[in-house]
Amino acid sequence: MTMEATRDRCAIAGIGATDFSKSSGRTTLTLATEAALAAAADAGVDPKAIDGIVRCDADAVSHNDLATSLGLCELTYWGATGAGGAAPCGMVGQAVAAVLSGQATTVLVYRSLNGRSGRRWGRGRKARTTVGGDGALDEFFTPHGLTTPGQLWAMMAQHHFERYGTTKEHLGHIAVTCRSNANANPAAQMAGRTLTLDEHAAARSLSSPLGLFDYCLETDGACALIVTTAERARDLAGGAVLVRATAQFASATVGPGTFYPALLRPDLDDQPSIGLARTLFRRAELSPSDIDVAQLYDCFTITVLVQLEQYGFCKSGEGGPFAASGAITPGGALPINTAGGHLSEGYIHGMNHIVEGVRQMRGSSTTQIAGAETCLVTSGLPVASSALVLVRDR
Amino acid sequence: MTMEATRDRCAIAGIGATDFSKSSGRTTLTLATEAALAAAADAGVDPKAIDGIVRCDADAVSHNDLATSLGLCELTYWGATGAGGAAPCGMVGQAVAAVLSGQATTVLVYRSLNGRSGRRWGRGRKARTTVGGDGALDEFFTPHGLTTPGQLWAMMAQHHFERYGTTKEHLGHIAVTCRSNANANPAAQMAGRTLTLDEHAAARSLSSPLGLFDYCLETDGACALIVTTAERARDLAGGAVLVRATAQFASATVGPGTFYPALLRPDLDDQPSIGLARTLFRRAELSPSDIDVAQLYDCFTITVLVQLEQYGFCKSGEGGPFAASGAITPGGALPINTAGGHLSEGYIHGMNHIVEGVRQMRGSSTTQIAGAETCLVTSGLPVASSALVLVRDR
Repeated sequence: MTMEATRDRCAIAGIGATDFSKSSGRTTLTLATEAALAAAADAGVDPKAIDGIVRCDADAVSHNDLATSLGLCELTYWGATGAGGAAPCGMVGQAVAAVLSGQATTVLVYRSLNGRSGRRWGRGRKARTTVGGDGALDEFFTPHGLTTPGQLWAMMAQHHFERYGTTKEHLGHIAVTCRSNANANPAAQMAGRTLTLDEHAAARSLSSPLGLFDYCLETDGACALIVTTAERARDLAGGAVLVRATAQFASATVGPGTFYPALLRPDLDDQPSIGLARTLFRRAELSPSDIDVAQLYDCFTITVLVQLEQYGFCKSGEGGPFAASGAITPGGALPINTAGGHLSEGYIHGMNHIVEGVRQMRGSSTTQIAGAETCLVTSGLPVASSALVLVRDR
Repeated sequence: MTMEATRDRCAIAGIGATDFSKSSGRTTLTLATEAALAAAADAGVDPKAIDGIVRCDADAVSHNDLATSLGLCELTYWGATGAGGAAPCGMVGQAVAAVLSGQATTVLVYRSLNGRSGRRWGRGRKARTTVGGDGALDEFFTPHGLTTPGQLWAMMAQHHFERYGTTKEHLGHIAVTCRSNANANPAAQMAGRTLTLDEHAAARSLSSPLGLFDYCLETDGACALIVTTAERARDLAGGAVLVRATAQFASATVGPGTFYPALLRPDLDDQPSIGLARTLFRRAELSPSDIDVAQLYDCFTITVLVQLEQYGFCKSGEGGPFAASGAITPGGALPINTAGGHLSEGYIHGMNHIVEGVRQMRGSSTTQIAGAETCLVTSGLPVASSALVLVRDR
């Protein structure tokens, strides 16, 4: 069987989310359980019918703890993928594989984190003395003070600025678009706080050239999905949002690690995300112009900008002008992050992007794109990442 | 598609292993790379053709580090499962799903650990203060001094002794059978050291009623497999050992955690392994009497004994007499752990059992069972576990 033969055979039948906050006051197990129950209710399935679980490798909640919390009596598939924010679309791909290989019928896909009150992902880290893991970071970067994701992406941004003439204002258009979408979404952490280009420009610098509003939020919360066959989803209350295709893509780097070796590549245009996009569109039998709306992983504004290029929505180097052209706004050619994204809805490590993708295909987004029938969702943008295409069921 | 429809559609095309020792002198990444290269060479595929990786969630080697070490340029699937020793057969199931869903064509499945010179799995642990994880252990067991797997299984053994009249000598037959098989296997850690029933009986007690030889080894080493379609495997140098069926099975417990809640179940006969066996045999369309040889997860002798019952090779409570009857020896009705198992070949956390299963189906074991055409392999025996059936290609 080829991936092409799996096209549209599985669907996301239910979505669930907790509130997004700076301090949930609950454990990640409680958050995961709440999101899972919400997704099952949304799909219209008994939570006890869940017989598969796919988690993110960085999640503190194990499949077994969640199975116990939900009272699952016959869990016949569990698995994980990663790394971290690169996981969610790959998690859906793994759920599809579990369903199509007959290992489970009703797969829960979840991500739960206390990203603000618990472990904060954007923080610096100490060098480890072990070999393996993010070895390149430990050996070559940390001793020189390069310890946070923000610093990495600042260097990528600076590279882009110098090579292509990209500006802070280009990044501002991405931040402002996400914020404006979040203002329409009552569930967004930034629902009530507007943002202008001037405010973006005036914000304090965190890691030059990136400022406060180029960074994503830190969030306590959880999201969950129910994946099953398209045929079955059509008979359920939640209906079917079809998984047209999924893809993961990684490539050997000049040093070990999942994230920082992106810096070690000789060229901005030589990132594995380009192979990911090629693989995804081939499997989906679609081209960038077929995409009606996109939820692009936005740990920083610059990651959105480079994805606009890498997925072929514009040419290399033209991500800035494309973002500033209005194309990424709800009325543009490629509306993005319609719930606010990581920059303004919340940071559920890529999972809230899939939830919003499902809402767009159902027609229930708070910034609904009229007539949207295809949605691109991406997860992560380091050396290894994943993506998927959802389509409206006809 | 049902799991039945995946039957025999994928195969293990290659196997690889490092030496097994108490001190490898290499990193786990080096060990994993060596085993992967050996598996690719055994299959007759270019290592660079590997486009999928499935790992154990407890492995220190990430898919990305291994991809870099092997120089993989287009990795289009990666995932993990667990927990720990419960993973390997589930890892093969995940590889099968990746192949059948078209996400990868050539999947590397590996386990690498410095289990003696590095992290030692059998050691006690400190209670954690976080909720979740092995919560039941931390809250109910650790404060009372129950901190190691050996202690847990000692209690399970004592329960079995009292309920069914099982004896230390019954366990001795399992230890001696594994050792005898290891004596024929030059790669086994215990290749050169014999063991008699008297020596087993006289060994010092580690956690009563379990003594030294009821415990598995601690091993530095790695094993790897190449999973692809059966059709393709038939054209490769390594040939095809068919994956008849795989299964994972977990069930809600009275407390969270993957391992210790087994103790909290009211009945020895109420373990999820029983659901696992039922699921596996149904998918394989086989019954226990169809199994020619078995590689049973043997972290302790008692785990083999209860599996003999749970998989239906004998009735509940009769595992001891069955083991003592000679049935599990190479000339018996159900030869087990023909390379020596965890008790005497090495402890690669379930993966060396699959490697030996492949050897049996190829006819290349050092304790080859004449005419063997089906092999059961099991991984782990806690609350969540996995198993598979391999069959000889005709």
